[in-house]
Amino acid sequence: MGGDKAPEIVISGAALARRRFPDVRFLMFGDEPRIGPLIDAEPGLRAATTIRHTDIAVSGDDKPSVALRQGRNSSMQLSINAVRDGEAAGVVSAGNTGALMAMAKVSLKTLPGIDRPAIVAFFPTLVGESVMLDLGANVECDVRNLVQFGLLGAAFARSVLGLERPTVGLVNVGAEEAKGRETVKQAAAQLREENPYFAFHGFVEGNDIANGTVDVFVVDGFTGNITLKAIEGTLRLYSEYMRQAFRSSLVTKLAFLLARRSFDKMRARMDPRRYNGATFLGLNGIVVKSHGGTDAFGFANAIAVAVDMASNGVNDFIIRELAGFTDDQAPEARAAVS
Amino acid sequence: MGGDKAPEIVISGAALARRRFPDVRFLMFGDEPRIGPLIDAEPGLRAATTIRHTDIAVSGDDKPSVALRQGRNSSMQLSINAVRDGEAAGVVSAGNTGALMAMAKVSLKTLPGIDRPAIVAFFPTLVGESVMLDLGANVECDVRNLVQFGLLGAAFARSVLGLERPTVGLVNVGAEEAKGRETVKQAAAQLREENPYFAFHGFVEGNDIANGTVDVFVVDGFTGNITLKAIEGTLRLYSEYMRQAFRSSLVTKLAFLLARRSFDKMRARMDPRRYNGATFLGLNGIVVKSHGGTDAFGFANAIAVAVDMASNGVNDFIIRELAGFTDDQAPEARAAVS
Repeated sequence: MGGDKAPEIVISGAALARRRFPDVRFLMFGDEPRIGPLIDAEPGLRAATTIRHTDIAVSGDDKPSVALRQGRNSSMQLSINAVRDGEAAGVVSAGNTGALMAMAKVSLKTLPGIDRPAIVAFFPTLVGESVMLDLGANVECDVRNLVQFGLLGAAFARSVLGLERPTVGLVNVGAEEAKGRETVKQAAAQLREENPYFAFHGFVEGNDIANGTVDVFVVDGFTGNITLKAIEGTLRLYSEYMRQAFRSSLVTKLAFLLARRSFDKMRARMDPRRYNGATFLGLNGIVVKSHGGTDAFGFANAIAVAVDMASNGVNDFIIRELAGFTDDQAPEARAAVS
Repeated sequence: MGGDKAPEIVISGAALARRRFPDVRFLMFGDEPRIGPLIDAEPGLRAATTIRHTDIAVSGDDKPSVALRQGRNSSMQLSINAVRDGEAAGVVSAGNTGALMAMAKVSLKTLPGIDRPAIVAFFPTLVGESVMLDLGANVECDVRNLVQFGLLGAAFARSVLGLERPTVGLVNVGAEEAKGRETVKQAAAQLREENPYFAFHGFVEGNDIANGTVDVFVVDGFTGNITLKAIEGTLRLYSEYMRQAFRSSLVTKLAFLLARRSFDKMRARMDPRRYNGATFLGLNGIVVKSHGGTDAFGFANAIAVAVDMASNGVNDFIIRELAGFTDDQAPEARAAVS
């Protein structure tokens, strides 16, 4: 029931996802009189879906604390409980991010060795794809949080992107060791410990994100959230300038027609819907947050992220790697991480 | 002597700036045997220039503390001293940012009521131009710093952009009052005080930067630096994708030729050289930092920023406004600001 165009795009997104993953089954939580007919309208979807009726839904404006207290029987809480109880392999929601995070933390708890979950997503770079975390779950981060995000991000990249030994970078204001915030410098000292799971690259700067200098960008949730949204805003600004450039005369309109197919391909590469589906990493369960304003195509991609994570057993993978990493580390570092 | 292509682009940049501002005079600090012939090669530049010889130059890798101790007779320190001593109206450098800031703070001191200077720059948005600060002078900022940056940024926008009552926004992870970091929330409470100098908009998010939602974006130097560089990286990524799209076939190459003029105009609008020249705001003197890798056109624009600031008397303006703002505020707020 969450998102700007719910429940319509959630259901048509599920129908799209089912075509990509014919074995996937859905547990849908929501207002049956509204969602039933929409599900029936999608060929084959009803057979793959179990509906759990509830007419309570968390609204986009609800404070997380209010949602937690008043939303015990909301579609959001019930769907998270289904993951906790082993009924579902993961939950995908386009609803209120803060409420989803609060409910997921309380119901699912964090993985052993993880203090706080982080929001992770992947995005296009000059050389391929990278992941970045935290994108907004934690506005204040200490050294332990940043180190844990490095481990979580590396395990995510190994599992979901299939990289054998991903490179990890800490986002900072300069590449030199002496620069930047104290917490970032201390986190770097711990991540630098040799280990078989990832290669620590050191500090990276803002421009390294689009360059894809590393596979995993680690940053506090305040800076990560603002940076991500600034990048999205810049892409829209550039698109708008380009649109204006192509519309400026008959000749440029002709040019647009000629170059259209090629530009459509380029736009598809950067289509934010392709990268929809931010994951709450570090929880005992798979929780994927779709952009609230996405469409069916975007929501299907968020479902695909959850399916990928579930079929790769991401969380078991992370638990094993966390145990290995802390065992490999020097005692002082271990004490700080575990 | 500072920057990747110094002293050549500094001198050709000065020559370019002199054509835009025929009355401007230069005091150039550097290695006379090297810079003398370069100055002579630019028609009319020698007559507008006084050379002060020094063969000591701060290097790009010097730590600020080392530059401060060992660079007493460096071209950078001597040029800052010229501002302190009233010989020059402002200093422009493409050299080591950290060293320039450290020397400027020690020699020029901060303006009354300002604890720490901030780096400010303007950039293109969907609707015009905005300014953002701090872009990296302070990796940790407290409530006082953020409030002071708001005042400095507003005075800068009034003076340099000519806006009568600019809008000021605090960059945060959400627009709602309850969201974000504690320091940001407390700074908002103080900036919200009614005053004749600017209109406080409240919180803004990362995507608001490209949208130009406010005239002045206030942010801590860690987040500001990373966000600015992430935006620059994204613009380069988009340009590269566009280049690839235009090169993909004979037809798209033809399209490029047809649209070229229009695209050149668009690129000029976003040309980072146009926006070259970050200002160290909050000092008793005008200090403008050019990008180290810029060319003559970019360096001339950094000089133009200094000329604008000097002819508008920005610092006197800021001093008057700071006094007015603190007088207008409630006693509690005044105590926290002054």
